[in-house]
Amino acid sequence: MELHLHPGEAGDRVGSLYRQLREAIVDGRLRSGDRLPPTRTLAEDVGVARATVTAAYERLVAEGLADGRVGAGTFVAAGVRALQALNSEAPAAPMPVAGPLALSVVKPRPLPSEVRYDLRHGRPDPALFPLREWRALHVSEVSRTDLLRTAHDLAGEPALRAAVARHLGRSRGIAATAEDVVITRGTQQALDLLARTLLRPADVVAIESPAYIDAFAAFEGVRARLTGVPVDRDGLVVDRMPSRAALVYCTPAHQSPLGPVMSLTRRAALLAWARTAGAWVVEDDYDTEYRYDHRALDPMRTLDREGRVLYVGSVSKTLSPRLRVGWLLAPAAVRAAVLQVKEFLDPFGERATQRAMARFIDDGRLAVHVRRTGAVYAARREVLLEAVARELPTFDVIPGAAGLHITLTCDREPIDLDELVTRCARRGVLLRTVREASVSTSTPAPGTVSDGIILGFGTIEERDIPAATAEVARCAYGDGPRAR
Amino acid sequence: MELHLHPGEAGDRVGSLYRQLREAIVDGRLRSGDRLPPTRTLAEDVGVARATVTAAYERLVAEGLADGRVGAGTFVAAGVRALQALNSEAPAAPMPVAGPLALSVVKPRPLPSEVRYDLRHGRPDPALFPLREWRALHVSEVSRTDLLRTAHDLAGEPALRAAVARHLGRSRGIAATAEDVVITRGTQQALDLLARTLLRPADVVAIESPAYIDAFAAFEGVRARLTGVPVDRDGLVVDRMPSRAALVYCTPAHQSPLGPVMSLTRRAALLAWARTAGAWVVEDDYDTEYRYDHRALDPMRTLDREGRVLYVGSVSKTLSPRLRVGWLLAPAAVRAAVLQVKEFLDPFGERATQRAMARFIDDGRLAVHVRRTGAVYAARREVLLEAVARELPTFDVIPGAAGLHITLTCDREPIDLDELVTRCARRGVLLRTVREASVSTSTPAPGTVSDGIILGFGTIEERDIPAATAEVARCAYGDGPRAR
Repeated sequence: MELHLHPGEAGDRVGSLYRQLREAIVDGRLRSGDRLPPTRTLAEDVGVARATVTAAYERLVAEGLADGRVGAGTFVAAGVRALQALNSEAPAAPMPVAGPLALSVVKPRPLPSEVRYDLRHGRPDPALFPLREWRALHVSEVSRTDLLRTAHDLAGEPALRAAVARHLGRSRGIAATAEDVVITRGTQQALDLLARTLLRPADVVAIESPAYIDAFAAFEGVRARLTGVPVDRDGLVVDRMPSRAALVYCTPAHQSPLGPVMSLTRRAALLAWARTAGAWVVEDDYDTEYRYDHRALDPMRTLDREGRVLYVGSVSKTLSPRLRVGWLLAPAAVRAAVLQVKEFLDPFGERATQRAMARFIDDGRLAVHVRRTGAVYAARREVLLEAVARELPTFDVIPGAAGLHITLTCDREPIDLDELVTRCARRGVLLRTVREASVSTSTPAPGTVSDGIILGFGTIEERDIPAATAEVARCAYGDGPRAR
Repeated sequence: MELHLHPGEAGDRVGSLYRQLREAIVDGRLRSGDRLPPTRTLAEDVGVARATVTAAYERLVAEGLADGRVGAGTFVAAGVRALQALNSEAPAAPMPVAGPLALSVVKPRPLPSEVRYDLRHGRPDPALFPLREWRALHVSEVSRTDLLRTAHDLAGEPALRAAVARHLGRSRGIAATAEDVVITRGTQQALDLLARTLLRPADVVAIESPAYIDAFAAFEGVRARLTGVPVDRDGLVVDRMPSRAALVYCTPAHQSPLGPVMSLTRRAALLAWARTAGAWVVEDDYDTEYRYDHRALDPMRTLDREGRVLYVGSVSKTLSPRLRVGWLLAPAAVRAAVLQVKEFLDPFGERATQRAMARFIDDGRLAVHVRRTGAVYAARREVLLEAVARELPTFDVIPGAAGLHITLTCDREPIDLDELVTRCARRGVLLRTVREASVSTSTPAPGTVSDGIILGFGTIEERDIPAATAEVARCAYGDGPRAR
């Protein structure tokens, strides 16, 4: 038995000796039933105090690695056989990782080394974020919020719930009180809570196709069966809804990612369908704060008399997705069940953040911010639409007048959009196709939209838009005369 | 056609008129095809400017509620029929809410009006939280963290990942680098991410029975099939593991909620089982920071040579569950897949909180805090064990020397534990049975534990413990002579 023990570092000699002996037992140098050297002998061999050896042996005994028999010494325990057997075999091959479900369809494009123009959609401009103001509010709330002693409200800070209710009343015509609101960490958590609360395994969820990937992921997360419903220029094609579904997810204000507003007729038809199907309607009131014409339909929730519409929203598109502040409005029975799930999943929100946001809304700062940045985005959008009309004449803009991006189709003179986006990336221009920014699960039909390119103006500056669009045109048509 | 329109409030006359007309269309007073009054007539009737009426009509047209025909006036649109049909029917009965799954088994006991002693487990003492220190760090990080401009690390702030790796090296003998760590919002999010990443529908998950409810909820959330495995005084009874499972969840350091430490033999057997079954082992290293004797086995992760053990932990039991800081250590392939899921589910963590926590750990404050509070909890535990030995002689303490609670069984002279807890609550003493604090899914077998009472010492002060225990005894045995 060659143990080659060393005295270890001063200050942790017991631990060091214990670990060396443990290692020898685990790797099989010391076998089950072996007698450990007498403490005096080992102490001399290693050059440590006898008490150190005794303490290390005691720890081996305490951990089940050795047995001490009075008067007979210390023996490697019988129980280590399993451990030694485990280590005597070669490690198995690395385990395969099942990996995320739908998400595996998403193959993010590698970023080019040089980014000249970023036309990717989905994010507001960080440069427009009121950092100084927000920090002051946040610091003030962190300094005075007693994180631990006071009772915690599962639905979120009451001040923020009240502020959100007022905000939705003013900006979206929704009649709600603080009692109707559950604060979430953004839209994604709201969808996740709804999916977990309302869906049973193998329930059918109807979802727009193409659909916002994150929503798709939320419902697939609970292993629902997702059925895509096509989208045309009036939004979700309600005639193509499945006859049965537990829930439908939609973005009526600005279909994500295509952009059309769901017409009033379609909204009414969808509610009628939901009544017949006995289904919940999840209305993601996404991208509504920035509107560029009068087509500002009130949310479906204002048409709902049956407590069927579950309304979600957030500050991710107006302020920043990094703040993680969103909300869910639901009838009392759903709200109670959602809170039961939330208690297990994520009981404690960021109280200081929520209180700072309540003040940000109540002081009118959110409204001012939306107005101020809305003017900036409107100007960018105008320049982009002009540039597209001029530079990309074979593309059509899907009508829709909200949000931070436009979507173009090119059905008249089809080209390979993936190839276009790859060529753009090579020239440092970032954008995405509808296909890579969404999940399509329906068969395309005449009049419905299945692919296109998305041009975001959330983060690109106005002065860069003409050049960026010209670059996209160059990648689409080559440097020669424009294919008009 | 009696519309009874009123001029509305100054400042929003167009909106007011629009909403009144919309209401009349939606509720059917104005029907599809009806001609709206000429603008001049309506303006005079209501007492507003003609331009106001024109603008309100334009909005109706824009929203699809009306059609303007040049020279012929404005008509209620054909598309509103669906809407009117919807509203002409009586609202359907309120939708039934499927509700959470396993969680429905949990019926929280109503709190008594007066709480004299709180022996519920699972939370550290908020009075021991270093609020002043933490706030100073947090404020400093909120003030200087640029929330938006700098790149965001999906796995969490690098400083915190490095600090956690060092902390786990020192306190748990784990060899890890910042690269191995994913920061989560506590253990629950780590379990949720693992469940979503690694499980396919109907996969079998083996779980301790009784099990920590929140873990049960995480795996049930993705609709896994949960199989309970009984627990005895050496922890999980590995002989009773199912022959096949995709994953096993366990709390080897201090089984939740019973308290035994999983013996080394069992740990080795569990790893051997996992190899044969091709299963992942999720090790929830819960409640390990507070240890009261030498039985401090290193985590199973230190025995794992195959990248099979996925290790999770948090500051919830040492600092506070309200901070929402936890971690997951996983082999590279799992980590990459987890991050792919996290990108959809919850890409942005609380950066300022994470950076403050990194400093809290790096400055040695966490270690000092655990030492300081550990002495307080050790004293409470000592007093509680003495009081239990004296006052509750028919109960047995399950051996285990970590955490913030002890668990008692009363198999020798069984009594109705639910009734005991109810009687205690009536006298203002809060505690829970194992049954209500956990999910049991296995058939009890000889030697395994299926019920008991849990006495937490996380929030009760040392001086109150003898009286609280005496009160429990009074509820167990009545006021008469003790049933010994």
